Order: sequence, then C-alpha cells, then structure tokens
Amino acid sequence: MRGRQPVGSIVAENRKNLMLFSGRAYPGLANEIGEVLGIGVTETTAYDFAGGETFVRYTESVRGSDAFIVQSITAPVNKWFMETLLMVDAAKRGSAKRITVVLPFYPYARQDKKHRGREPVSARLVADLLKTAGANRILTVDLHTAQIQGFFDGPVDHLFAMDVLAGYIEKAYGDRPLTMVAPDSGRVRVAERWTDRLGGCPLAFIHKTRDITAPNQVVANRVIGDVVGRTCIVVDDMIDTAGTICKAADILFDSGAADVIVASTHAVNSDPATERLKNSRIREVVVTNTLPLSPEKQFDKLTVLSIAPLLARAIREVFDDGSVTTLFGGLS
Amino acid sequence: MRGRQPVGSIVAENRKNLMLFSGRAYPGLANEIGEVLGIGVTETTAYDFAGGETFVRYTESVRGSDAFIVQSITAPVNKWFMETLLMVDAAKRGSAKRITVVLPFYPYARQDKKHRGREPVSARLVADLLKTAGANRILTVDLHTAQIQGFFDGPVDHLFAMDVLAGYIEKAYGDRPLTMVAPDSGRVRVAERWTDRLGGCPLAFIHKTRDITAPNQVVANRVIGDVVGRTCIVVDDMIDTAGTICKAADILFDSGAADVIVASTHAVNSDPATERLKNSRIREVVVTNTLPLSPEKQFDKLTVLSIAPLLARAIREVFDDGSVTTLFGGLS
Amino acid sequence: MRGRQPVGSIVAENRKNLMLFSGRAYPGLANEIGEVLGIGVTETTAYDFAGGETFVRYTESVRGSDAFIVQSITAPVNKWFMETLLMVDAAKRGSAKRITVVLPFYPYARQDKKHRGREPVSARLVADLLKTAGANRILTVDLHTAQIQGFFDGPVDHLFAMDVLAGYIEKAYGDRPLTMVAPDSGRVRVAERWTDRLGGCPLAFIHKTRDITAPNQVVANRVIGDVVGRTCIVVDDMIDTAGTICKAADILFDSGAADVIVASTHAVNSDPATERLKNSRIREVVVTNTLPLSPEKQFDKLTVLSIAPLLARAIREVFDDGSVTTLFGGLS
Amino acid sequence: MRGRQPVGSIVAENRKNLMLFSGRAYPGLANEIGEVLGIGVTETTAYDFAGGETFVRYTESVRGSDAFIVQSITAPVNKWFMETLLMVDAAKRGSAKRITVVLPFYPYARQDKKHRGREPVSARLVADLLKTAGANRILTVDLHTAQIQGFFDGPVDHLFAMDVLAGYIEKAYGDRPLTMVAPDSGRVRVAERWTDRLGGCPLAFIHKTRDITAPNQVVANRVIGDVVGRTCIVVDDMIDTAGTICKAADILFDSGAADVIVASTHAVNSDPATERLKNSRIREVVVTNTLPLSPEKQFDKLTVLSIAPLLARAIREVFDDGSVTTLFGGLS
Amino acid sequence: MRGRQPVGSIVAENRKNLMLFSGRAYPGLANEIGEVLGIGVTETTAYDFAGGETFVRYTESVRGSDAFIVQSITAPVNKWFMETLLMVDAAKRGSAKRITVVLPFYPYARQDKKHRGREPVSARLVADLLKTAGANRILTVDLHTAQIQGFFDGPVDHLFAMDVLAGYIEKAYGDRPLTMVAPDSGRVRVAERWTDRLGGCPLAFIHKTRDITAPNQVVANRVIGDVVGRTCIVVDDMIDTAGTICKAADILFDSGAADVIVASTHAVNSDPATERLKNSRIREVVVTNTLPLSPEKQFDKLTVLSIAPLLARAIREVFDDGSVTTLFGGLS
Amino acid sequence: MRGRQPVGSIVAENRKNLMLFSGRAYPGLANEIGEVLGIGVTETTAYDFAGGETFVRYTESVRGSDAFIVQSITAPVNKWFMETLLMVDAAKRGSAKRITVVLPFYPYARQDKKHRGREPVSARLVADLLKTAGANRILTVDLHTAQIQGFFDGPVDHLFAMDVLAGYIEKAYGDRPLTMVAPDSGRVRVAERWTDRLGGCPLAFIHKTRDITAPNQVVANRVIGDVVGRTCIVVDDMIDTAGTICKAADILFDSGAADVIVASTHAVNSDPATERLKNSRIREVVVTNTLPLSPEKQFDKLTVLSIAPLLARAIREVFDDGSVTTLFGGLS
Repeated sequence: MRGRQPVGSIVAENRKNLMLFSGRAYPGLANEIGEVLGIGVTETTAYDFAGGETFVRYTESVRGSDAFIVQSITAPVNKWFMETLLMVDAAKRGSAKRITVVLPFYPYARQDKKHRGREPVSARLVADLLKTAGANRILTVDLHTAQIQGFFDGPVDHLFAMDVLAGYIEKAYGDRPLTMVAPDSGRVRVAERWTDRLGGCPLAFIHKTRDITAPNQVVANRVIGDVVGRTCIVVDDMIDTAGTICKAADILFDSGAADVIVASTHAVNSDPATERLKNSRIREVVVTNTLPLSPEKQFDKLTVLSIAPLLARAIREVFDDGSVTTLFGGLS
Repeated sequence: MRGRQPVGSIVAENRKNLMLFSGRAYPGLANEIGEVLGIGVTETTAYDFAGGETFVRYTESVRGSDAFIVQSITAPVNKWFMETLLMVDAAKRGSAKRITVVLPFYPYARQDKKHRGREPVSARLVADLLKTAGANRILTVDLHTAQIQGFFDGPVDHLFAMDVLAGYIEKAYGDRPLTMVAPDSGRVRVAERWTDRLGGCPLAFIHKTRDITAPNQVVANRVIGDVVGRTCIVVDDMIDTAGTICKAADILFDSGAADVIVASTHAVNSDPATERLKNSRIREVVVTNTLPLSPEKQFDKLTVLSIAPLLARAIREVFDDGSVTTLFGGLS
Repeated sequence: MRGRQPVGSIVAENRKNLMLFSGRAYPGLANEIGEVLGIGVTETTAYDFAGGETFVRYTESVRGSDAFIVQSITAPVNKWFMETLLMVDAAKRGSAKRITVVLPFYPYARQDKKHRGREPVSARLVADLLKTAGANRILTVDLHTAQIQGFFDGPVDHLFAMDVLAGYIEKAYGDRPLTMVAPDSGRVRVAERWTDRLGGCPLAFIHKTRDITAPNQVVANRVIGDVVGRTCIVVDDMIDTAGTICKAADILFDSGAADVIVASTHAVNSDPATERLKNSRIREVVVTNTLPLSPEKQFDKLTVLSIAPLLARAIREVFDDGSVTTLFGGLS
Repeated sequence: MRGRQPVGSIVAENRKNLMLFSGRAYPGLANEIGEVLGIGVTETTAYDFAGGETFVRYTESVRGSDAFIVQSITAPVNKWFMETLLMVDAAKRGSAKRITVVLPFYPYARQDKKHRGREPVSARLVADLLKTAGANRILTVDLHTAQIQGFFDGPVDHLFAMDVLAGYIEKAYGDRPLTMVAPDSGRVRVAERWTDRLGGCPLAFIHKTRDITAPNQVVANRVIGDVVGRTCIVVDDMIDTAGTICKAADILFDSGAADVIVASTHAVNSDPATERLKNSRIREVVVTNTLPLSPEKQFDKLTVLSIAPLLARAIREVFDDGSVTTLFGGLS
Repeated sequence: MRGRQPVGSIVAENRKNLMLFSGRAYPGLANEIGEVLGIGVTETTAYDFAGGETFVRYTESVRGSDAFIVQSITAPVNKWFMETLLMVDAAKRGSAKRITVVLPFYPYARQDKKHRGREPVSARLVADLLKTAGANRILTVDLHTAQIQGFFDGPVDHLFAMDVLAGYIEKAYGDRPLTMVAPDSGRVRVAERWTDRLGGCPLAFIHKTRDITAPNQVVANRVIGDVVGRTCIVVDDMIDTAGTICKAADILFDSGAADVIVASTHAVNSDPATERLKNSRIREVVVTNTLPLSPEKQFDKLTVLSIAPLLARAIREVFDDGSVTTLFGGLS
Repeated sequence: MRGRQPVGSIVAENRKNLMLFSGRAYPGLANEIGEVLGIGVTETTAYDFAGGETFVRYTESVRGSDAFIVQSITAPVNKWFMETLLMVDAAKRGSAKRITVVLPFYPYARQDKKHRGREPVSARLVADLLKTAGANRILTVDLHTAQIQGFFDGPVDHLFAMDVLAGYIEKAYGDRPLTMVAPDSGRVRVAERWTDRLGGCPLAFIHKTRDITAPNQVVANRVIGDVVGRTCIVVDDMIDTAGTICKAADILFDSGAADVIVASTHAVNSDPATERLKNSRIREVVVTNTLPLSPEKQFDKLTVLSIAPLLARAIREVFDDGSVTTLFGGLS
C-alpha cells in the first residue's frame, strides 16, 4: 500500500476552502464577485480610529482558508493600500493557508521606474510590501506596464479587460470605419493589440514634441496616422484627470476625425476628469468598474461595464488549479 | 468539470496527518497531551555526546506530516532550546509539511526589550531562531508580555491558563472576600483581568520605590489598594526564585491581609523558590505543569493543575483549522 | 606596512556625510532639529497626484550619505507612513549608505499584539514594512510599549521624553504634595518610573472593572492609591481623544484630589480631545511636539515642550558612533 | 570631542579602494574602462573544466574593496552569466566591501514579463540571481524596458547611450531632412525621445498587423508617419538577427524614404544579422561596443562607438558618491 | 463535528497531482523515469534564441501540481543549469504547488569549498540559486561530498547508486579475490563503504605525494594496501577526464594487481576520457546513466546501468510522503 | 573637484575601530589574543539567571565598531553557543558596524550531513543561527570538513593549525622515521596533507570493517600502510573521548610501530579521554588551545600549543583588509 499512517497519528481529509474578503474601498465589487461565485463576502470589522490609524478584524475564523482579499485601490490610495496590508497580516497571523490579493487596479503602477534619479520605484515597493505582509499571490487587471508582474516574487495572474471593452465597441461601432488611436507614444503597442482584435483596422497615435531643455514641457502634439473621416477609438489603460485624453480628442477632431470614442479599463477619474470629459466632443467613454465611480463621477456619455465576471472566473480557476491562461486569451 | 488532470499525471488524495513529538525536557507533558488526543508520541532518538553536543533523530518517517513538537523549556534552558531547534531542523529536512513548535513556557520572555543599552532582545532572537530552523507556527501559553507574539513572523496561538487557575481558585476560595494583587507595577493589567473574571473583586499592587541613581536597588515596597482582612490572590505569569512573591506576601500580611494565595501559570521554581515558598506564610501556591516539577520542587501547599487538556484542544483545532479563538475565550 | 593598495586601484578617503530629510507631515520639527544640528533640511520634492498617489524625489544627490528621514506620523496616518516608505525606497535606490528613519511618534503602536483573534499585529507590520523599504535603523521616542523595539530587525534607538517633561513638572509643581497617577492598569509601571524620577512620591492608578461577558464595556472606575488633597500628575505616553484622561481627572477630583496635571509625550489630540481638555477641571496639560499641533488644537492650559534638542543630540550621536545610552539616562 | 575611542581598541583610517575586474566575455571593454580610469584590471584566473564547469579565482586580495565586475554578456549567454555569478560569490566570500556588477548589456531583458502563461520572467530571475550571489548594485546601459531596474532589490544605475549615438548621427546626417523611425509599435516612445534630442524632427513607426488566431504571425507591415524623401533614422535598443530592422528598412524604402540609417546601442548581431545588414539597402549601422564584435561580425557600413568613457565616468561617480544623474542627463 | 465551513465559502477536495518535466539536457532519462512511473513527461517548449538566451514555456497548466523537474546537468553545464532555473521560475510563477528539482548529477559539486582564498563556493551558490528561482526540494544521486545537502535550505533527498553498481559487480566478479581501491586519499571513506557492502574485502588507495612549494604538482603515486594478485575495484563518484582513474589502474597493475575494474556513478567522461579508458588495461568500466552518454562516448568495455528505477521510486515516495530512507538503505 | 558636500550636511572622517569581546567559555584565550594585538578585551556583563537563562550586556558603547566576538565553544556547548548568539544580537542592536564571530572550535561540525534520514544538519543550522543573530563573518580554525565554510552565507576565514602543530612535531621528532597515520578512512586526505608538509613521509590509515546489517558496529580494525619500526604520527582534527585514537594506537603498536604520537588541533577531551590517553602507550599528545583544558584534563604527556598568535594575526588582517590567504599558506 502506498502512503503511510504511523501508529498513533491522526489522519484527516485535507479539504480546501475558498473565502472571499473585501476592504472598505469598494465593497460593491466584491459583492458582485461573490454573487457570480455563489458565495457571500466574509464579514470583516474595519474602521479608523480618531487618530487616523486603521483597524481590521475578521469576524470569523480564517484558519486553513484559501483567502481572496479584494480591494479596489481608489483615493485615498495610501489608506486603502495600508488597509490591504493590515488585512493580509491579519489573515497570515490567523493561519489562512494561502492569501491572494485581488487588486483590480494596481496602485502606483505609473511609478514603475525611476523617471529621473532619486525617485522611488513605487510599483516595486508596493509588490514588496504585499509580500512582506504575507501575500502569496496577486490577481490584477491591465497593469500599466506588464513588467510590473515581475515586481512580485510569486505568481501574478494578470487579466485583460480588452475582450470586455472591445466586445462592447464592436457591437456599438463595428459598422463604422474605425481607427485605433494611442493617446501617446508609450501606448502604441497596446493600441496595436486592439487593431488585431478588431480585425486589422488602421492605427494612429499622438506625437508629443518636448523641448529637450525642459523635458516636462510638451511643445506640440501631432496626429501620426490616418484619421480623416474615421471614428477614432482612443484606448488607454486608465483615465486619470483626462487631460491627455481630451487633448487627444481635440487634435483628432481638428485633424478631421469623424468621431471619437474612448475605451479605458481603469476609471480613476480624478478631478477635473468628469468636467473635462462631459464638456469634450468625445461621443462615449467606455470603462470598467475596477474602481468605484461615485454618482458625481458619472455622466451621460459614460458607459461602465462590469469586471466582476472576469475576476470571479479567475478566482474560481485559481482555487480549482485550472488554467487562467486558457480562459483569458492566452495572455497571462 | 472543474479542476483538471493532465494526461499522464498521477493524482492522489491529499490527506493530512497529525504527528506529535517531544523533546527530552519534559516528556510527561507530551504524553499527557497524546493521551487526550488519543495518539502516541512519535519515538525520537535524542542524546548528548560526551563533548556536550546534542543529537536528535526521528525513528520513523515524518514526510508530509503536520508536526507538533512539544518542548517545555526548563533549566538547562539553552540545552533544551537548542534541542528544539535541532528537532525543527530535522523535521524540515525530513519533509514535514508544517511544523508547529509547542512551547508551554516561552524561554527568554523576560528579555523582551532592551532594559538598558547594549543588551540583546532575547525574546525576539528566540522567535527568529525558531523561524530560521524551520518553525512555521508557535503555540504557547501565557507569554510574559503579549507583544512577544509579534516577535514571530508567522501565526502564534497564544493560550491563557487563567480559566484553569481561576476555576480552581473560585471553587476553593470563592466564598471569601478576595482581593487580586499584582506583585509589581508591571503586572497590574493582568491582575485587573482576573478581577473581571472573578466578578469584580478589588485590586491592589505592590509599589516598589527605586533610587534613581541606582536603578536596580529597590528601597521600599508599599501596598497600594485595599487588603485589610481580605484573602489576597497574588497572580503572576511565573514564579522564578519566588523572591518577589514572598516579599509581596510578607507586605500583604504586614498590611493586614487575612490570607495570601499565589496563582501562577509557570512554575520555574528556581532555587531557592521551594525553600522560600515552604517557609512563607502563603497558604497555597497554585500553578500549572507548563514546566516539569521534579519531586524535590514539590511541597505540601503546592497545587499543580494540568495544562495538557488546553494544549491538546488547541493542537486539535489547529490541525482541524478550527477556531482557537472561540474555544479559549476570544483572547488570541 | 599594514593595509594594502593593489597596483592600479584607486584609493580614496572614506568620509561620512550626515543628511537630514523631512516628510511633509511636520516639516517644522525637522527644521528645528536642523537648527540644533547647524544644518539645513535637504530639499525634497513631494506631492500627491490627483488620483491620490504620492510622489517624492530628492532634489540633490544622496549617494553615500548617512540619511536621517524625519516624519511625525500624524493623521492622515496611512498617507504619511506610505510617504515615509517611498522616501526610504528613494534613498535606498539613490545609494544612500545608511538610512535611519526618525519617527518621533511610532504609528500603530497600540496594535502591538492581537487583542483578540484574527487581528493584525500592526506595530510589527510597520517595522517590517520599514525594513522592506530599506530602513537600516529606527530612532523613536516613548514607544507605547518598549517591546516594539524588538519588532524591528535592526538597531532601534528608543529615547525617553520623561526628563523633558519631568523637568518642567518639577519646576512648576515641585513644591506641592504630588501623586503620580496611571490612567489605567497597563500604565502603572510607567507612572512608577516617574515616582522614582520625582524622588519617591506616592503612586495611584484608575482601576476599570469590565463585565466579563462584554469585555469592551467598562462598568466602573475606581482610584486605587492615595490622592486626597494631593496634586495628581497623570502620566501617559499619548493623548488621543482624551477620554480616558478626562475621566481619570474627574474620578481623581471626585476622590478628593487637590489638582490634576496631565503630562504626556505624544499629543495626538484627535477630536474631541481639545474640547474635552479645555472643558475639564485639569489645570495644565504638558506635552512635547513629537506631533504637530495645529492652531485649532491649541488652548490656554496646553504647554508644548520641544523634543527637537533630544532628537538632534541622538542623531548626532548616532552619526558620530557615540553612546545614546549614556546621554539619555541609560534607558535605551 | 565628538566620537569615542575605548581604551584598548585599535582605531584606523577607513579608506576606500576601487578595484576593477573583468569576466572573460569581453576583456577589451574592461581594459578600455581601466584606461579611462587610469588603473589596470585586477588579474583573475578563470577557465572551464573539461566537463564544462567554470572556475574563477582572484589573483590578489579583494578584502575591503569597492569591486566593479564588468561582464558583457554575449553568447554563450548562460556561460558568461554564470561566470559573473561565480565572480560575485568569490568577491563576497573574499570580503569585498561592496560589489557592483557592470552589465553593459543586461541579459534576458526581452523576457521582462510573461508574454503568455507558464513562462518565466527571466529578467527578474537574472536580478534575483545576482542579488543572491552577493551583488549590491548594478550598473547597466539602455535596458530593453526601464522597468527592469525595478527588478533588482538595490540601486541600479541606468545609463543611456543616446547622447553617444545621437551626437554621431547629428554630425554625420544633421544637414538632411530626418525622420526618426521606430521599427515596431513598442519602441515608439524611445524614438520620440530621439526626436526631442534632434530638435523636433518627424516620427514614424512600422505597424505590424497580426492574425488574432495566430498571434505570432505578422500578416502585414505598414509605415505610419511621414517618410517620403526623408532620411530615416531607425532606432532600437538592440540589433539581434536584424530581421525586424531589415524588414523595416525595406518598407521604408518602398514607402519612399530617401535613405535609411540604423542606430542601436547593443549589437548582439546574431546570425544572420551581418549577412542581412550587409546585403540591405541600409546606408550605415551605428552601434556601441557594449558587446564584443568579432571580426567576422564587422562590415563596411558598420560604425562602432565606444561606450567605455560613459561607463568609466559612471564607475568613478559611484565610487566617489557623486551624482550619476547629473552627469548623464538626469535620466536615471 | 470537527472542522468548519463558513456560510458562503466554497469547499472542495484537495487532491495532489504529480507532474514530470524534463530539461533538454537528457530527455531520455526523464522518459525512462516516466515509464517506470507509468506517466508521460509533460510537454515543454524550450529553445535558444539566436543571441544565446534560453526560452522555456510549459505547454499545459501546472497550477497546483507537485512538479518534478528532471535535468541531467552535462556539458554545456551553465546552459543546462540556467535552463533549470528558468524552468523552476516558470513553474513557480505558473503556480505549481511544490517544486522538486531532480538533479541526477549535482553540478559544481567539486567546488564545495574554497580550495584557496578568493574562490567561490560554487556548490553552495548552485543551491542558493535553485532556492532563489523557487525550488522547494532537491533530489539527487551520490553527491561528491555528502555535506552538499547542507548547502540547500530545504529538504534534500540524497540517493545512492552503490546498490545498483555493487549488485552488478557482485554478480560479475563476486567469485574473484577482490580489493576495493580508492583512487585518491579523499575517497577512501567511500571505498570503505563498498568493502562493507561486499562482505569485508580488503581496501587500498593511491597515495599522491605533492611538493609543498607547488601544491598542484603531484610528484609520486604509491599504492597503499594489498593488491597483489587481486582483482581491484576502483570506485569513484565520477569519471571526468579519467586521468586519475587510468593512472590508478597503471599503478595497480604495476603493483601486481591481477585485474582492474572501475565502478563510478557519474560518467562525465570529458575528453579524452573515452580514449584513455579504451586504451587502458582496465577490464570493465561500470557506470550509471545519471548523465547522457553520446554514441562517441561509448566503447566496448563500458557498461551502463540505468538509474531511472531508483529515481522513479524516490519520486513516487516523495509524492506519497513515503520514506525514502527505508527504501534506499537508511542512508539519507 | 571629485565628491560632493551638500550645503548644510555634516561631513566627518570615517574611522574604523577594532573591539574585542569574549564570551565566558574561555576568557583566557581572548586575553591572549588581546595581548598579541596590544589591546584589552572590552568588558561584558554576562551571567545566568537562576532559571537558566543567560544575560549579556556590553559595559561600553559598541556603536560603529568592527566587533570580534571570541567564544571557544566547549561543554556545555549549547549554553556557550546560545551566549554567543545573544552577544551577537546585543552587538547588532547596539549598532556595531561589522560583527565577526571568532570560533576557534566550530560546534556541531561533525553533524555536517544527515548520516541517516530524519537527522538535522546541525552544522548548517549553527551557521544559519549565527547569521540570523547578526553575524557578518566567521573566523574559525580547522573545520571538521572544509565544506562547512559553505554553510555560512558570508565570508568565512578558515585558518589551519597544521603549521603550528607540524612545526613542533618536526622539531621534536624530525630525525626519526615517521609515518603519518589517519585514524580512520575519512581522515586520510588530511593525513596526506601532513605527509607533504613533512617532506613526503609514508602514509597509513586504520581500516574499519562494519557489518552491513548493523552499520554502527565496527567488527575489525586493520592498519593499511607501512608502520613497522616507524614513529607513527596520528593526526586528527579533534580528540573527543579518545576512543578512536587509543584504539588506533593499540593497533599501530600491535602492527609493529616503534612509537605513536598524536597531533590534533582541538582538544575536546571529553570523559574518559584523559584517563584513556594517560593509560595508553602513546608517547605524546600535541594539541592547541582552541578549547580550554581544565587542570584535571591535563597530564604529563600532553603538550598544548597556543593558537592565539594565529588568531590575532588573522583578526588584524581582517580589520586591515589584508590578505589572510597570504599569511596562512594560501589555504583559505
């Protein structure tokens, strides 16, 4: 007989147990995920002390669980990130078996390198802090740069919202002459992927000219590529203050574009994004709910698609040791 | 179908297997625990070489086991602690799946900070050495200060013997007018917890005055609180040489106490504790067997309660991924 | 000849270079320290992006420096703590030789253990996060519990403000009959140290009775110790919402105290601390400026002593490899 | 007097000592660097055993040195990388004080993320292996993506060869109408930086269309941007087999370009790069010597600029704790 | 009921899943192992880029698997070792549950110490690099020195080929008068183990005299022990260039040996081993296939025994948590 | 001008400062070393509490020092080893700049591998515990196996006492016909090194035959090599109970040896070593004082040579960044 069972030891079946937790940043998304999975979010006590420190405690035992801690790190970023670390520490010290941090939006992703000397590499620091707190794995969506997955010392499941967004675009605008547009030179590769997804449509980008002696000063923007009379789909991983996006739209219209649609995974939508987008000539802004959008951030031409089904499927596959790669287009 | 089974792989049930091990410091306690659990202690070869080095070897395979290594670190402390580290290393290299070190008495707990400059923080060092050897978790009873659980980088299950001791005190002395007494200013918080457990009885402590120019010199002791005509329960986490305790008893009697009982989790009982306690006016000394008490350390008014049921229940819950918090009063 | 210098190598003098940096939480304190040291605070660019992420960059080279990063972690705590981590990372990646984080007030110090199960040990997490970011050492004042120094894997210089505060108390109230009062059972040891410092005055504390079935519910407070007709000095490491302190003052007055003075190192002074203290019968509240006190947090009977000279002397000794122990009373 | 000198201790001056070492991959470059620095390369014994293992040994003591180990990781990549690790280990165990690995070309930089599931992130692994062996810092040139600096847990000095290359281009072709061309969508950002450096010339790139069902299959290439009648400068971080570059040149000529020049930092020049470039219509290929170019890899229209002065200056600044940022354009 | 299942969590059976992988160095051995285990080797894509970098990718999901990665590290050693590290990294990032690296021949085992100053301890470096990449355990055969198992921070299963080799020797030569011979003074202990295995036959070794002023220069070889008229079995852990072995054989014949047989676990057989052994007076060379032997390395008197059954049994026991010690003679 | 000095920073000379510390195991040796170095041993407070825990504290500041902590780990081994760890921790937390542990005798060196399954690799554990406590480097003499230096993750200076011992042997017995004898098969390589040192004298060893079914049972001992009429120098790294040595001597005399001398670095001399050696036919036992020899362990034919000059020279070279290799025969 294989295996062995020493006299006097206790042998038991070793089951695994998926538990879902949510930080306070955006409980709605975790609830949506729980609904897709058919389970509830485990109750957690979390509040801030008067002095500003954060307290968290799990209301029921997490021992031996396969814990998924969901936090959409919106502003105030540092508060929600620290809460995430505290939740991971509590799960670790409470004997969770495996801890996956689900970050629909990875914070500090834009500081993924030193742009100049004596800066932090904040995105790497974020990965290290999560590891230190006790995170075993990360599950995230559309990293600002894919290299960030290499910042974490462990498995990272990197999901893509392109299918969700592109499916919508195809249905809504598939019959028009489309051009994919990258709002700056650094996002051309991403836009190129969309052209393949959309059957090979043309590609353009906005070229910014900087004065070499004042590198943060953009002196001119030009469209490079064919946009005259075409419906331009401007794609970006995130909308922050929407300055770049709105300027891109202006130049596109000025360069003869018939229409401009914006598609973006992460709607950070910091002030004055809402005002800018509302007042722009952009026809529609399509985003996902990786981040919460308060009512005052919503406006008529904003379309929000849910990311919960994608996250729920990935969580289920991670729990079941299934292949995330297979499900989500072989990209991660 | 969920999950997957690639062609050609071998899939097997993944059972877990509790194994109990004991160092040589106090095998009697591990045996007691094993009896409560209904299993034997796995045989281990352990001896000292003539030159003073310690040798350990497990007599049967520990591969894949959920190993609980019990060691009551009594004098010679460094020897038994090093033996514990060697046992952990042997379990790690022998492929145990998870290693919990059960320390009924955590060694070096009193050196939990630098009292003055250029001292070690020995209690932190102990935690780090256990981690380095390969310990995944610690299970312990009544730490000298609860902060010590934060010294270990991993889960610590911190059990409390108060219920065991207080249950006995209540039964034996519950009908008398009781006052809880902390033997020094640092233990008042612990004594306060006892007053709550015993239904709100009065609280007192011994205030030591030191000469600021010779900080280790106590110049006077005073009772602060109401003890006249009352049965005083002096509580402490440990009895070492019993100097503090016996002096406290003297002052209490001198201040009008009707009777003095001592309750303490850990009976280190170093010389001349036995002599002192025997010769004191203390009526009864109630302790648990977290540490072995050799026959010459025993005396008439010493009552020893077994800690084994508490440890056995905790081990079982850890193995079963049950909640230790729930069982033991929500304190850990 | 001792030493060696291989043919073709470049040999240079190896000087060391103290640089002082400040986070944005309380630049005034760093400036005060710099003035005592006779140097300026090195300029740092730091701001928040619209989306809430923090950016930091050192304006001049930090290569090879002995960097002291001062941050008084007041509310919003998580933001200033994360800024500290980013500053440490930037210094590490910018090749600072040694990084000392100067935390006049150590954040999350009260969560220094799991009070109940499934909580984080946040104070240990804070230490680990600082280490991960790249901190080599910590310099701090009056930790909530001294054990926290053991949470950091490296040297911690733990300074005491007692001399600063007690010097003031002695001068102002030394001619009155004083009693040191601990506001709760956990702070009696600290108050005892003050009695020694003040030449052996009496000691008292407030005993809180809790209902064992509702452990967070205090059912009664009693003074234990001699306070009738005496000027009570209530000492605590920090004032947060001042609830405990003000209740203590009330009980003291109700129990016959002649007067109540409060002495505390850290003035967190969260709402409604100012209101409470102003309206209380407390004569004077003496604190240090380890944390900033905005004008609206100030009031007539509040006395603020500067901690900058103590920190400056410690920084200088650390830089010079002098003895911090010697200077500051042999306590660290 | 500041500082202290205990009775009986030995106090000595603490000098620092720059030592330069070279692996066997490209000793010529290290020699060039040594010449600029005015020192020799310290002799190292290195050879391969018959069985394929590599042996290294320093011929003279490296104790206390500030060691710079230069290795240009050309083919066979794994051999030279492993030699580098062995050299670092030998320096660490030989008590070098600080070890900087100088990698003019960072190996495995293109595998900086998982392109699909179940791949390694080799560039992160490279960073971790260097750290494990004992490297304290890395000095490198033109990383394939700047995020790679975040892969290393320590300071990375990231130098740029653009000034070296662009200076040459300006002198040779500055009077012609230039267009900067990115050979694919992922390099447009880099090409844009060149346009700023060259005073704002136009920008173009090659857009590859892929069949979404066969993602590695490029189905068409198109020039996007203005190239007719212009001299195109195709810039890339490296030339490997030159397939992409030569195809880009063909399309550019076919689209009306007047001339095509290639500028690239790293001349990997794997087979059949030399044949392809020689036979192409490209006028000139300008590279640096971050990698060795054997005689058979050289050809008429290849221009090789030396990277040694840049590396030497950076090494000197690192040793002197000067600012690398200041010297090299504020980019790292 | 034991265990617990919170409302809303998903509980599933936790099976384990053995997957077998092979590097490119010697796929034949992995296939043999797979055949014994009754499973196939999981398909892996692996190739070298033109520039010399190695690429690996698993063709199917490895999530949750108990992964055994087999690599026989033959020349080019550094390439196959780096490939192993990349495979481990890919398995780690692909969420394998446990990763065992099966190294039939441990590379760099001879550099297990600094022979002189300023050398690496390459065998320790190899262990650390494997750990860094993500290896949880190592399974290996006949380490050059058993101490190497201590280099790895985790379980090492160290198998012995002596039973395989000695079984053959006994059958083939058991009726002759045998003497076990160690080819040098460092291998006498190993040869002594063989004498016990073979029932107590005599033991001899070759004593090399070195000139103390030129320590790598052997000035004379002498046989110590009884070999006249006997069949000598020269045992060594590996045959590299066969210089030592062939010289030993010559001296043995010259000293009166009747016959010489060589038995060795690892047939590195670097040039000119084949030529030397073929032309020697040695009757038979018996080895195992821990390393591949290309056709041109084979010759008439070479006998190759398969190590696959031993490795397969060990893998199965590791997977089943059985005892490797029991199966393989209590030696590991 | 090279280097830089920002406005407002404090620049100071960076001197280094050798401090010598001693554990309580054998203060005499540290004093001897201090005398050679011309400095005193820094005073340390160290004692055992009644309960068996060890306390250490440095009497003066160790900030910034280059600390050498000398401990001769004799019986009780675990106590002195734990004291060493506590001293290292105190030095680390007291801000020593570099900590070298000087272990004239490395403890647990014989448990340098798993002899059978489920044993610890204690010698590796020792190295890891030292590292965890904060040791930066180790300085030791004649490791049981040289591989142990690879157990420590950092520089190990491994000194050899052979020159000290062999110089004495040469002077005392150089005119006789000598044979070097290894007391067992595992020490033949070491004895061979002595033959080279002594100009090429013959070599022999004791061959032990074991019953394969009872591997710890030696059934017979035989001398292999030429000893008739010769003065045999039996060399071993340590004398423990002297059983092996004395049996070796008996067999040597029985096999015709003229005389037997024993030379060994480490005189563990556990009971009944002294009795055995005194009563043996051995003429002289030559050892060094790496371990203390109490008066009752001394006897007429025991010669003790001092190891202090060797250690002092090595400490000085380490401090001065000189070459230890050069001084001590190129062996480390």
